[in-house]
Amino acid sequence: MPHTWLNFPLYKGMWQADDATLWKHGVVRIYDTFLTTDTLLNTDRFTQKILLDKKAPRGAISSSEFHYYIGKKLLKEAPNPQTSILAQAAKFNIPVYTSSPGDSTYGMDLAAYNKATNKKFRRRGEIDLHINPNIDVKETAAIVMAAKENGAIILGGGSPKNFYMQTQPFLWECLGIERGGHDYFIQITMDSPQWGGLSGATPQEAVSWGKINPNELQNTVVVYADVTLATPILFSYAIEKAKPRKQKKLYLKRKKLVYNLEKESKRKPVDWVPEELYKKHQKQ
Amino acid sequence: MPHTWLNFPLYKGMWQADDATLWKHGVVRIYDTFLTTDTLLNTDRFTQKILLDKKAPRGAISSSEFHYYIGKKLLKEAPNPQTSILAQAAKFNIPVYTSSPGDSTYGMDLAAYNKATNKKFRRRGEIDLHINPNIDVKETAAIVMAAKENGAIILGGGSPKNFYMQTQPFLWECLGIERGGHDYFIQITMDSPQWGGLSGATPQEAVSWGKINPNELQNTVVVYADVTLATPILFSYAIEKAKPRKQKKLYLKRKKLVYNLEKESKRKPVDWVPEELYKKHQKQ
Amino acid sequence: MPHTWLNFPLYKGMWQADDATLWKHGVVRIYDTFLTTDTLLNTDRFTQKILLDKKAPRGAISSSEFHYYIGKKLLKEAPNPQTSILAQAAKFNIPVYTSSPGDSTYGMDLAAYNKATNKKFRRRGEIDLHINPNIDVKETAAIVMAAKENGAIILGGGSPKNFYMQTQPFLWECLGIERGGHDYFIQITMDSPQWGGLSGATPQEAVSWGKINPNELQNTVVVYADVTLATPILFSYAIEKAKPRKQKKLYLKRKKLVYNLEKESKRKPVDWVPEELYKKHQKQ
Amino acid sequence: MPHTWLNFPLYKGMWQADDATLWKHGVVRIYDTFLTTDTLLNTDRFTQKILLDKKAPRGAISSSEFHYYIGKKLLKEAPNPQTSILAQAAKFNIPVYTSSPGDSTYGMDLAAYNKATNKKFRRRGEIDLHINPNIDVKETAAIVMAAKENGAIILGGGSPKNFYMQTQPFLWECLGIERGGHDYFIQITMDSPQWGGLSGATPQEAVSWGKINPNELQNTVVVYADVTLATPILFSYAIEKAKPRKQKKLYLKRKKLVYNLEKESKRKPVDWVPEELYKKHQKQ
Repeated sequence: MPHTWLNFPLYKGMWQADDATLWKHGVVRIYDTFLTTDTLLNTDRFTQKILLDKKAPRGAISSSEFHYYIGKKLLKEAPNPQTSILAQAAKFNIPVYTSSPGDSTYGMDLAAYNKATNKKFRRRGEIDLHINPNIDVKETAAIVMAAKENGAIILGGGSPKNFYMQTQPFLWECLGIERGGHDYFIQITMDSPQWGGLSGATPQEAVSWGKINPNELQNTVVVYADVTLATPILFSYAIEKAKPRKQKKLYLKRKKLVYNLEKESKRKPVDWVPEELYKKHQKQ
Repeated sequence: MPHTWLNFPLYKGMWQADDATLWKHGVVRIYDTFLTTDTLLNTDRFTQKILLDKKAPRGAISSSEFHYYIGKKLLKEAPNPQTSILAQAAKFNIPVYTSSPGDSTYGMDLAAYNKATNKKFRRRGEIDLHINPNIDVKETAAIVMAAKENGAIILGGGSPKNFYMQTQPFLWECLGIERGGHDYFIQITMDSPQWGGLSGATPQEAVSWGKINPNELQNTVVVYADVTLATPILFSYAIEKAKPRKQKKLYLKRKKLVYNLEKESKRKPVDWVPEELYKKHQKQ
Repeated sequence: MPHTWLNFPLYKGMWQADDATLWKHGVVRIYDTFLTTDTLLNTDRFTQKILLDKKAPRGAISSSEFHYYIGKKLLKEAPNPQTSILAQAAKFNIPVYTSSPGDSTYGMDLAAYNKATNKKFRRRGEIDLHINPNIDVKETAAIVMAAKENGAIILGGGSPKNFYMQTQPFLWECLGIERGGHDYFIQITMDSPQWGGLSGATPQEAVSWGKINPNELQNTVVVYADVTLATPILFSYAIEKAKPRKQKKLYLKRKKLVYNLEKESKRKPVDWVPEELYKKHQKQ
Repeated sequence: MPHTWLNFPLYKGMWQADDATLWKHGVVRIYDTFLTTDTLLNTDRFTQKILLDKKAPRGAISSSEFHYYIGKKLLKEAPNPQTSILAQAAKFNIPVYTSSPGDSTYGMDLAAYNKATNKKFRRRGEIDLHINPNIDVKETAAIVMAAKENGAIILGGGSPKNFYMQTQPFLWECLGIERGGHDYFIQITMDSPQWGGLSGATPQEAVSWGKINPNELQNTVVVYADVTLATPILFSYAIEKAKPRKQKKLYLKRKKLVYNLEKESKRKPVDWVPEELYKKHQKQ
């Protein structure tokens, strides 16, 4: 009976609510949105159910594989999969990454899940199911290395921003592969540059890191607005104006792309710190 | 010659600098701070050197173990280890966690390092060295479960904030262990509640999630200020007023604490979703 | 030849421009908008021309009278009066007030104008043309006293916000006339409550001052967005949904309304501090 | 009995208070500060008392004269005049201006006061007591014109920021007197440049308006912090480091300085729009 487990409602609440009262009544608040602790617990139950499935992934995997697995399950079991980002991403083979795999309901469920499964799997010498961030770092960089044109559309900021922007320094700084920086950049954010954090850093600052191509700054823009206000305007415009493009199905190609990345980086003269680049910069 | 590899300078720069020019000259900008790409590359070289050490950790480890290893090496090799957070944390056995293990120089170095080591280790059937976020989730929750009094001092916000605040929901929601929420909470941040993100969420909102004890709200405060301005004032005050406390050496105890956590959660009636709690909330 | 004096262009510029260079070339910057110093100087010239007109107002006047006079002149002389707020306000007899009459181009022109006119007018015993804020305070409060339903739509924040919100305390605190606070309140702002200023203060805080009716809080909303983004959405919606209303022509009625205000306040028992209210509050 | 009228207490409150309840009990909230409506009413009563004094100023005056009069009275009657900004400013003959004379308790009291006094004074042909912003514009510019070195220390932002910064454009744009822009600029603010308002505008932007000398940008700084946090640090430093300076007593000199300003501007070739400057800019 998946209907009772999924499609959990969110309610329009108010930020002035008394939170001790909410807690007593099993209501959870996200600023002015309300949900129930049932929703949290049922989400945990659904996640447990699908992770205990025999065909669930095992061992150290990328977050793209983890999210793809959940998306596929939601396509089958969720009553309204068209409203789920993970379901739609899985349907169109779009890889979904997270930069903070332990910091979420899924992160907690994965850690708790292993309590349930450790015994069985450890007996078979298996390691617990978990996200290996190394694979994510390599997959995202491999996608960037393979693309003709690169860029980022960032809704909000925080750790996900750098996680994708660092693909360029990872290529040049760690693997000796020059891709020249991203070619376009759109960020919708309420963060500001003056706090010095990466979240509010300008595209200009990103140029100094080789994250954005210095010749493409005219293709960068920061929209200082709440994403819930600005994103519908931007996306409506894009859907209205842009012709449909051939789907890239990057999820299916990601292992091949990482293979190419590792091959390319092996052809570089030195181990993995790019000695030539190092010398070049020392001379300056 | 560790001196040439460590103790890299940061320079007071200006945010109005032309970033294309900086990039050409190997200067990297963080708002109004300058460093050189040499610093980035030398940091990578040092990290590579110590990771290739025979005694370096292997396989899937916690971020606390990773940071402890780096801290220990810095205590030996850095010219001024007293200025290094990781070195001092290792010296006093304070565990250091990250919620976004792939999103940083270390995240990139770990991913690139495996390029260097894969061949050798894979031959021996070893898995690559990487952070397993599950261990971090369990270690942080185990520390909270064991403490008489819990709380958080949060400098900034972002993903690290929730990563520590979720220890309480992880205990009650996923493991059926009630700890009642944190007893105190100090956040120094420039984020605001109205954007609806966790980073700027108030301690009040955290009460509704069981993250903060509803009876202890008087012990919570948000300081709306840049951490570089407010933290020295707060910490100077604490050093001036508070008597030295017995060191807890939590890094050395973390495995024992996780053992206790797993034992405690096994005594709970159901698998890992706490059925009783679930029923309790469904009845309401 | 009004065409050369009015309808001055604004240009889309960029915030990264070098301002010393702009200054040298007579270009003035407002974040990412450019205009020329010609525009400033021609605005001054136009203002001078119409202030020297024989029919220009003289002496101490309200800012509504000053803006009405400019609006009327623009309706006659501006090539595109439909794009001028002052012209359209004058056309429909909507009074326009400013809370900071000296802080603007008009404030500077009025002060400079008197250099030109002082001699002539002083000889005749006239006082210089200037805004008398007392009249503005009374006119705005008189409009509020006379209305069946009161409210404010605030684009931005700053001093204009309090200037209109204080109409209610002016009535009860200074004149002993209870109007119960505004009945609705919409503010579009990027300011935040935590800085403690009036500009970012919530409608809730306004209730404690008697500025907003405590029973009408459900009719208040703060939209945290740049006005250039949110206002077109809000106003498009209003124009689409609301039926045209009968024009109130408040500019033409303002003297009558102030007369009523003064009459009403004279009926109060004491001088001008409302003794009864004072006693009532002292007893509590 | 001035003691009961002055020295009114402020209380540390909380922003989560229920404002309808506060209103009922005569408590007024400024974010997390509480005061009572008694304080408001007693402030009004004190102001009324001193404005009805025979020696009170009459007619159209500058805000500096108004504030000086209040300060002088407080020096005599207030129990702790050392805690009053207006009292101390009056004691040391420092002129205090406001850019929004009608937007405050004083603005309301002046408007209400005239209700009390109109009858008596009008009979004698007097105009009501009010602030004439023209005088403020001229006094502030006259102070700037006379100084060897000019600058601004801005606590917060808003309308007062431009009111002082516009002294330079008033000189060059309206009176044809070149002073070259301010020589230094410190602003402590929580506003940001990206909203495009003057309050958060950078010193760089001010250069394009001739408000700040383009050669003195190194003497400008914006501190992004709450003034209650940063100002005590800055002022403590200044008091600690700087030697006492000879007092300028600008309040006593302001009429002489305005006389000099008007004399200087009369020597300019044209009426009051500086034709030469106009031509110079048109040629560019």
